[in-house]
Amino acid sequence: MIRHLLSGADLDAATATLILDTAAEMATVAGREVKKLPALRGRTVVNLFYEDSTRTRISFEAAAKRLSADVINFSAKGSSVAKGESLKDTALTLQAMGADAVVVRHPASGAPHRLADWVDGSVVNAGDGTHEHPTQALLDAYTMRARLGRLAGLHVAVVGDVLHSRVARSNVLLLSTLGAKVTLVGPPTLIPVDIAQALASGIDVSYDLDAVLPNVDVVMMLRVQRERMTDSYFPSAREYARRYGLDAPRMRRLPEHAIVMHPGPMNRGMEITPEVADSPRSTIVEQVANGVSVRMAVLYLLLGGNNL
Amino acid sequence: MIRHLLSGADLDAATATLILDTAAEMATVAGREVKKLPALRGRTVVNLFYEDSTRTRISFEAAAKRLSADVINFSAKGSSVAKGESLKDTALTLQAMGADAVVVRHPASGAPHRLADWVDGSVVNAGDGTHEHPTQALLDAYTMRARLGRLAGLHVAVVGDVLHSRVARSNVLLLSTLGAKVTLVGPPTLIPVDIAQALASGIDVSYDLDAVLPNVDVVMMLRVQRERMTDSYFPSAREYARRYGLDAPRMRRLPEHAIVMHPGPMNRGMEITPEVADSPRSTIVEQVANGVSVRMAVLYLLLGGNNL
Amino acid sequence: MIRHLLSGADLDAATATLILDTAAEMATVAGREVKKLPALRGRTVVNLFYEDSTRTRISFEAAAKRLSADVINFSAKGSSVAKGESLKDTALTLQAMGADAVVVRHPASGAPHRLADWVDGSVVNAGDGTHEHPTQALLDAYTMRARLGRLAGLHVAVVGDVLHSRVARSNVLLLSTLGAKVTLVGPPTLIPVDIAQALASGIDVSYDLDAVLPNVDVVMMLRVQRERMTDSYFPSAREYARRYGLDAPRMRRLPEHAIVMHPGPMNRGMEITPEVADSPRSTIVEQVANGVSVRMAVLYLLLGGNNL
Repeated sequence: MIRHLLSGADLDAATATLILDTAAEMATVAGREVKKLPALRGRTVVNLFYEDSTRTRISFEAAAKRLSADVINFSAKGSSVAKGESLKDTALTLQAMGADAVVVRHPASGAPHRLADWVDGSVVNAGDGTHEHPTQALLDAYTMRARLGRLAGLHVAVVGDVLHSRVARSNVLLLSTLGAKVTLVGPPTLIPVDIAQALASGIDVSYDLDAVLPNVDVVMMLRVQRERMTDSYFPSAREYARRYGLDAPRMRRLPEHAIVMHPGPMNRGMEITPEVADSPRSTIVEQVANGVSVRMAVLYLLLGGNNL
Repeated sequence: MIRHLLSGADLDAATATLILDTAAEMATVAGREVKKLPALRGRTVVNLFYEDSTRTRISFEAAAKRLSADVINFSAKGSSVAKGESLKDTALTLQAMGADAVVVRHPASGAPHRLADWVDGSVVNAGDGTHEHPTQALLDAYTMRARLGRLAGLHVAVVGDVLHSRVARSNVLLLSTLGAKVTLVGPPTLIPVDIAQALASGIDVSYDLDAVLPNVDVVMMLRVQRERMTDSYFPSAREYARRYGLDAPRMRRLPEHAIVMHPGPMNRGMEITPEVADSPRSTIVEQVANGVSVRMAVLYLLLGGNNL
Repeated sequence: MIRHLLSGADLDAATATLILDTAAEMATVAGREVKKLPALRGRTVVNLFYEDSTRTRISFEAAAKRLSADVINFSAKGSSVAKGESLKDTALTLQAMGADAVVVRHPASGAPHRLADWVDGSVVNAGDGTHEHPTQALLDAYTMRARLGRLAGLHVAVVGDVLHSRVARSNVLLLSTLGAKVTLVGPPTLIPVDIAQALASGIDVSYDLDAVLPNVDVVMMLRVQRERMTDSYFPSAREYARRYGLDAPRMRRLPEHAIVMHPGPMNRGMEITPEVADSPRSTIVEQVANGVSVRMAVLYLLLGGNNL
């Protein structure tokens, strides 16, 4: 097993499949009367968040607590970080306090990699800048497999602001590893052409959502980050919703079996309409539930837990 | 047993009495060497706070932890809520993460009711706008019963900004159910005449605190919310304290056995003087202690805990 | 055993040594497979922080959780404190909620002493204004003893803004009790002459770091609080670093066996250079680790834990 989870690229097909299979075991725990497992009793998981992300933090916190780990939340705001402490000194501090795993969200791409050089424990990247968010990709893969029965051969459209999306990047890496085909869809200014070329081994690009929809098994809508809406990269909100938003007529272009995904939180009415978000094709709520199972599996496997 | 606790009106006399009796059992736990009960082991309680209220949050947190539940604190500030996520999507997220109970504080009256439509778990209203705060009413009732031996037939004066007080509203509902008589006391602009009329089955109204005091068993002082002091509803601070503040001379008008309550935090010198707040008649500190017991009882009963 | 830990002066040599010995036992726990001890199961430790101090808060939180206590974090920001609640009412509230220990950080010197008058539980001073920070002194003493084998007879230089440093004050008191000799070093405006005189029983003062270094076993660099840098007390940053910063050439003036300490977080390049901070003489990371052990020992002994 790997020691850290920093990137979708850290995962070969065997490791990714082991995580998904372990997550499926974890999910069965939710059905038992006592949902708690003793596997990580006495271990300490630190949530080190340099950006607010309540839903990701809570998902990791719930996962760690269900494995009986102690969880310490460290929000960098108003901390010694605000007093100018370096990431390295923060890392050494957490290490010295006995953190067995550090779950880190950071605005700078690559910060989790640097952290991993400085601590003995395991580092889990919970989102770094516009770079990666590998547990999101794992929970998305888990959800596809649970709904559609397989990953190999699936055709997945990833739609929206691909350029700035760590969710997109991690998904492209992991889905390719697991044998799915990815098509990136969005306005030309928001598709990272060079990256697409680099990953050319199977990544398609399209600027026409309507043309892509009839041919996919999964359409994954990315969150529009409203703070980017004033960038020159971006069409107007109205134009964006018209061309790349998923509404009911567009959803009807999908094959019967296809599913609609979104990492949340949604901008209802922007990249997705309420009708689509709440339809039976939508896996949005399942993704959240699967996120806890997948993060349990990741923490369990990284920390070499016992007594599952 | 009910599934949610949203309003004092949810509680009939039998259910309210069951909660108070269970709270009394919980209170005995505090005397044991190990204060922790395994009753809610493996259950997750989420504190979803859209308004700051450290003392209410801590009270629920302490209650849940003494029952061995896992507690996750979700402060809406700086969360995806700040990114525009709807209450519904937040609810679905918490639900998907496996929250067995959601304790919610929200500035909008009625928000907990809407939440209850969206989650399978139990919702506890920890204060919604100017609407209700039912666990406060339960802990107040518990405190009266503990001090005075009964609730039926007690005469309770609720004094201050009744119009905007969720504490007052929940107390009026619960005390009426439990057979106590309530008199609302305050400036005419701060007494909700129509509501008083609606509840006319036994609610009195007075604008003269001095006249009421000799006839009550309990005087419950409401917190003055200083941010309202500039409203046209409100007399000046000085005038308010002079007419509706409880000081030592006024306290002496109470019957020998009567008690003084306050939900906290107090404005010492405004609605209550330090001499009164710290007197043996005051139940203010007991109310806090009873709050933990009552919230243990509520969580225990709602979640159908075992192994008490 | 004492009931509270408010000041380095609360500790006689026997009590301080008991804490250090207990901390050494606690440290061995970290080597075991399950790091958790049941000693404080069912007890509640409240972290009451009126100032941000993530690293101190986390250290106490980790310590309490390893002893199986429940931990409740109470940040005074945005709490009822912000609504004007007095320290006394906050104390009575925590007390009523059943806090067995309150760990308090407060900007006002003496606040923990007042708190100790109002609660039945134990109060641990986690830093009050410019006054004291006794667990920091204990972890420093622990670290010296672990590295150098003894405390009696050691010569310790405390360097920097001694005037405003609670770390310095607590260290001076505790080290004197334990038989070490202390020399305060810094600019004349930052050495509290009268206090030095009051403690004259063995405290030396020097303005010349280079002259002191060859004669010490320990050099403890204090953090420069940049917000003070504009005070008239203070030389310019550049002048300060030149005269009182510890760099590699200066470190070479130390005896072979001498160690370099810093309470963290460091201003690398100001009071200490990276080369020194990361050298084998530096105990900075050990201090953090020892901090958890020492705080476990303090909580364990104050709360009379069992089942160690």
